[in-house]
Amino acid sequence: MTIAVIPVPGLPLINPGDDLGQLLGDAIDAARVGLKAGDVVAVCQKVVSKAEGAVVALEEVEASAFAKHLAARTESGKDPRALEVILRETRRIVRMDRGHLICETHHGFVCANAGVDESNGVAPGVVTLLPRDPDASAERLREGLAARFGVTVATVITDTFGRPWREGLVEVALGCAGMDPLLDLRGRADLSGRELHHTVVALADEVAAAAGLVMEKDSAVAAAIVRGVRFTPGTAGATARLVRKPEFDLFR
Amino acid sequence: MTIAVIPVPGLPLINPGDDLGQLLGDAIDAARVGLKAGDVVAVCQKVVSKAEGAVVALEEVEASAFAKHLAARTESGKDPRALEVILRETRRIVRMDRGHLICETHHGFVCANAGVDESNGVAPGVVTLLPRDPDASAERLREGLAARFGVTVATVITDTFGRPWREGLVEVALGCAGMDPLLDLRGRADLSGRELHHTVVALADEVAAAAGLVMEKDSAVAAAIVRGVRFTPGTAGATARLVRKPEFDLFR
Repeated sequence: MTIAVIPVPGLPLINPGDDLGQLLGDAIDAARVGLKAGDVVAVCQKVVSKAEGAVVALEEVEASAFAKHLAARTESGKDPRALEVILRETRRIVRMDRGHLICETHHGFVCANAGVDESNGVAPGVVTLLPRDPDASAERLREGLAARFGVTVATVITDTFGRPWREGLVEVALGCAGMDPLLDLRGRADLSGRELHHTVVALADEVAAAAGLVMEKDSAVAAAIVRGVRFTPGTAGATARLVRKPEFDLFR
Repeated sequence: MTIAVIPVPGLPLINPGDDLGQLLGDAIDAARVGLKAGDVVAVCQKVVSKAEGAVVALEEVEASAFAKHLAARTESGKDPRALEVILRETRRIVRMDRGHLICETHHGFVCANAGVDESNGVAPGVVTLLPRDPDASAERLREGLAARFGVTVATVITDTFGRPWREGLVEVALGCAGMDPLLDLRGRADLSGRELHHTVVALADEVAAAAGLVMEKDSAVAAAIVRGVRFTPGTAGATARLVRKPEFDLFR
């Protein structure tokens, strides 16, 4: 079945306290694309964080001695107060080298600057944090869209991550609701009849990457509908499973 | 613009020496989806490797002492001769732990078992290797499709990779032709007018992941058309750029 990746433009600049679900529904209506049962609605993290008030004004932050040391050491030109915010979001610094900080967040995500971001639609002197609980954010959006449009859909909160060893950034899933983020093919036979032993597909990440093709980083497209994906309706808290458990992580 | 991800089923089981470009064109015709200018045709690595004869019969392999040692040590149940093939494809062992071998291939890809695969459509006792030069493989397919259908298209050879820290596998681009694998947004202004400093999108990987949504690992869909992607026509050898250069690799 053909999958359609439909951009949803027209979300306004989001401010803390905005009802993102309603604004998203309005944008879907304005785009005249509707919502169908089984659609996956992808929304970029930045607008979710802003609506939830997961933003910090740097003027209210006092940089610690270590944040000041990092600002001098990383040579990234970063404001020591932004580094202080990054440290507050960090459970573990994974790499600290050549102006880059790769951090494990309190959620368990491993990403640059613990997901703290100064760019793309954020006011000067204000940084965004990752949503406190991206699965809960996704669930709230899912419930709102399902109620408004009267169909069962899934939602994915996406963010733009780098990867070790590979150039460039891709959209990945921070949270999701209404779908199992993993597609477990273990035990199914492959083309030669041999059992597939290891294949668990990160379906939510593939959906996020597909949505990334229309959610351009320099445009106002902050959401997309991915239509036609075959997924298993998810259970609450399923997305946390995209974070690899320490005991299965060869790269700790 | 909406992007369509169109499965191309119907590729037969591929044997060494098969003209994959012709078989792929036949499958596109049979699926009645046509090819349009600007389409990206994604083909999974396995069929490319088989057509190119990048396969090894284990009965012709003699396992070295180290391969035998690994077979005993990794507890993966792997044939020592398969491990010998993996070692031949390996430039550097990145991790060797808990039954897993994460290798850097001679191309520079970092992946499980150096891309050597025993599953999915390979005959018993036969393993597939990654294509010697996936960009060249993509270019041959691109030329064949362009000549047959009379339109300018791009091609991507995809493979299924794991990632550090994140559960599950995703399709990534091993090679491509006719498109720049990276979308460089640096210097463009973001929504707040601030310059985007760091955003280079791994477009070919996002295309591969989107194609992965319809190229299921346990089905006979080994190719897909991704229609509507905005890309920059590529230059020869562009995909090698998806392999991060050692001096920019924080995870060496």
